[in-house]
Amino acid sequence: MSSAHQTVTAYWAAVEARDWETLAGLVAGDVFYEVPQTRERVRGREAFVRFCAEGFPGDWHITVERAVGQDQHAATWVLWSPGEDVTQSGVSFFDVGGDGRITRITDFWPEPYEPPGNRAHLVERG
Amino acid sequence: MSSAHQTVTAYWAAVEARDWETLAGLVAGDVFYEVPQTRERVRGREAFVRFCAEGFPGDWHITVERAVGQDQHAATWVLWSPGEDVTQSGVSFFDVGGDGRITRITDFWPEPYEPPGNRAHLVERG
Repeated sequence: MSSAHQTVTAYWAAVEARDWETLAGLVAGDVFYEVPQTRERVRGREAFVRFCAEGFPGDWHITVERAVGQDQHAATWVLWSPGEDVTQSGVSFFDVGGDGRITRITDFWPEPYEPPGNRAHLVERG
Repeated sequence: MSSAHQTVTAYWAAVEARDWETLAGLVAGDVFYEVPQTRERVRGREAFVRFCAEGFPGDWHITVERAVGQDQHAATWVLWSPGEDVTQSGVSFFDVGGDGRITRITDFWPEPYEPPGNRAHLVERG
């Protein structure tokens, strides 16, 4: 198990536990967070932890579906559940610095959409 | 560099080159492909290669932004460009079998959305 894998597993455990002190210790002082879909960006540990602690109210839960780590990089796929019978996939790419702290996080929150009809004969629907 | 990393790098090179013969050699005979956002599923090498070759017409290009591989798992973030000045992120998780062939692919194609206003004071917009 790579160090980056362990770091991002600890990251999601801290988020699930709302353990903001542990989360702060896992990210670099100059961590950069971005959501390309919304063009949201957060710079620095203090702003990032505040974003996590205050930006997502509610009794949601996170489970890790996949975590992959290699050298200074990692990727995760999580299931975010804001309530019963609802889940939303979240995908994140992480860069990890030489001291083991996360320096960059890129989040994606892909939502359902209807596929183009031109490929309907090539697939089944679940 | 892990074997899974090399496999998924070769996968995207084959897709970009429309080299369907090479792509076929990289996936298992019983490969399973899914897009959770659309609930599309494709089963088996022949159906999967046909889906890739016929499902996405046009002069698009793919560049790999991140590729992470660990043991039998890998994840990639690619930029898909159907034309000038347009890019769409694609995120994929891969399982790789003991023989080095890809057995499972989960694709996400996250699209832009407007973020909830409750966190606007916690972020900047790029």
